[in-house]
Amino acid sequence: MPTAQNQVVRFAKIPQPGPLTADVFSWEWQAMPEVAEGELLVRTIYLSIDAGSRAQLDDRSGYVIKAQPGKVLGSSGAVAEVVQSRHPDWQPGDLLATTLARWQSFQLVAPGRQLTARVNPADGPIAMHLGILGMVGFTAYIGIFEIGRPQPGETVLVSAAAGATGAAAGQFAKVAGARVVGIAGGASKCRLVKDEFGFDECIDYRAGDISESIARACPAGIDVYYENVGGEIQQAAFAHMNDFGRVAMCGQLAQYSGEGEAPGPNLMCTVLKRLTVRGFLAFDHMDRYQEFQQRATAWYREGKLRHHATVTAGLENIHDAVNSLTSGRNIGKQLCQVADEPKF
Amino acid sequence: MPTAQNQVVRFAKIPQPGPLTADVFSWEWQAMPEVAEGELLVRTIYLSIDAGSRAQLDDRSGYVIKAQPGKVLGSSGAVAEVVQSRHPDWQPGDLLATTLARWQSFQLVAPGRQLTARVNPADGPIAMHLGILGMVGFTAYIGIFEIGRPQPGETVLVSAAAGATGAAAGQFAKVAGARVVGIAGGASKCRLVKDEFGFDECIDYRAGDISESIARACPAGIDVYYENVGGEIQQAAFAHMNDFGRVAMCGQLAQYSGEGEAPGPNLMCTVLKRLTVRGFLAFDHMDRYQEFQQRATAWYREGKLRHHATVTAGLENIHDAVNSLTSGRNIGKQLCQVADEPKF
Repeated sequence: MPTAQNQVVRFAKIPQPGPLTADVFSWEWQAMPEVAEGELLVRTIYLSIDAGSRAQLDDRSGYVIKAQPGKVLGSSGAVAEVVQSRHPDWQPGDLLATTLARWQSFQLVAPGRQLTARVNPADGPIAMHLGILGMVGFTAYIGIFEIGRPQPGETVLVSAAAGATGAAAGQFAKVAGARVVGIAGGASKCRLVKDEFGFDECIDYRAGDISESIARACPAGIDVYYENVGGEIQQAAFAHMNDFGRVAMCGQLAQYSGEGEAPGPNLMCTVLKRLTVRGFLAFDHMDRYQEFQQRATAWYREGKLRHHATVTAGLENIHDAVNSLTSGRNIGKQLCQVADEPKF
Repeated sequence: MPTAQNQVVRFAKIPQPGPLTADVFSWEWQAMPEVAEGELLVRTIYLSIDAGSRAQLDDRSGYVIKAQPGKVLGSSGAVAEVVQSRHPDWQPGDLLATTLARWQSFQLVAPGRQLTARVNPADGPIAMHLGILGMVGFTAYIGIFEIGRPQPGETVLVSAAAGATGAAAGQFAKVAGARVVGIAGGASKCRLVKDEFGFDECIDYRAGDISESIARACPAGIDVYYENVGGEIQQAAFAHMNDFGRVAMCGQLAQYSGEGEAPGPNLMCTVLKRLTVRGFLAFDHMDRYQEFQQRATAWYREGKLRHHATVTAGLENIHDAVNSLTSGRNIGKQLCQVADEPKF
């Protein structure tokens, strides 16, 4: 018998540019959903907060997904605990990571129709399955191994290096044998990028001229640029690319908060340096997802990958979780914790 | 015994932005050069006038080559007649096309050290070896068959379509089975692009909003954009690219006359549409030159390719030849005719 115990976040109104205020959303209690044959009812523990979480809310971001006011919003994934199963492979108490999760405290998961990975708490922090071992890790994996393809000894520059995708991209580039330089905002983030994520150098874009900083940190130029920000940093990075350099275009965080689109770099450099600038979305490459999970899990066990998350507690604070990401306050993967982790 | 009968054009001073004036160059008469063993002395008939002919003259173009005042200038190629040979394969009276020619009425050619192709007047107009059968044709060939790779039925958009490279690119795209849309300036050029070069459509960028015109002419979007201009046209073309589209970055004519670099398009579209934007220079691909010449010669014989040139007469008018190109007055390959063609 359904009772009103499922908290749901609805998109209430299109935000002003800048940080989200609470009135952009409305919170309501709904009846627990009915579980159909082949489905699971799961308790949401962590929701992934994505660049798209903000970008989908207005038209000025140029983003792929547009949310309509009145709709319940979604994330790229969640880690959750099965509470009711009508699927033979899953039992109550099992933990899973799923792609495409709603901003709800409980939700239905259909293992046949969406990517559903078993989460073993013995492998490491369960939130890691929304980070380095989840879609953000996979995005970085494709950006490095499919798009950028750094060779041993080449220089890889990674923007938003303290963010989830950037941190993962830099770590994969290190696995590939490259010299890896990050860009992040502030001295403490830069320290973390080097000490925790193992980058060779990290540029603080708030300190000094970004173009001069890149020149200093990349004395042999840039062979692969993993691009996640746009704006001035993008312009400066393009200017320091080497001949035959590759730019893996992952996103442009700088324009996801409603300030609109800045122009890009003059593209004459792509001719003179014979650059390849290639945009990608991870979901075009799902045929490599299993390979990724196997390799990344092994690398994590070998100590070659680190997981880091910034957790905002409470579904009622999800706008703050989004603001944490868009303002760059997060370190590693930004999450909203909806319920306590089970005791293991 | 050398006599002063070799006219030479020297770079005299850095030009102002805009059309070149005669005082940018100086003309002088030099002694005929001495012919060393293995070399040829040739009489220049046609000099190629290239985008780089203007762009090399100042720093604001972002171009690859910078000329220093005082130097004798060069072109990407010439068609010439052998007048003296110290090479066993060549006889006086032979015609050749050579890469890298000086702005001189006579010059030395070293067949072993530079690309030197025999020109047979029976094949067609000899100037064609600086156009569709020369480096500009080869540039277009690489742009289409190596970079853009249109599939049958895909839509290819070509900017500067009445220019030598653009006209060639469109014709190669037709050979590849694509639907080909050009962009050119003015109704008469657009007619020529369709009637002479066989494009399916041609957009007059001077008539009406360029973005709307592209939308009308490319109702199924753009799969391959052969880019040669930069500026507004580039911005509009990027906005109409299809998912997984390819942009072959050949050059940016709009910025070669000293007005400086305009910003490029916002690159978020490269992510959302998974575009590949790839710059190229033909000389990186010389391993395909012979294949190109064989295929292009065959296609010309089959009537699948057309040659068109705009000829400015006289080495003393070479600044006008450059202005013809940079102002877009030329149709097809821009040449400077230095001497009469031999009677065949």
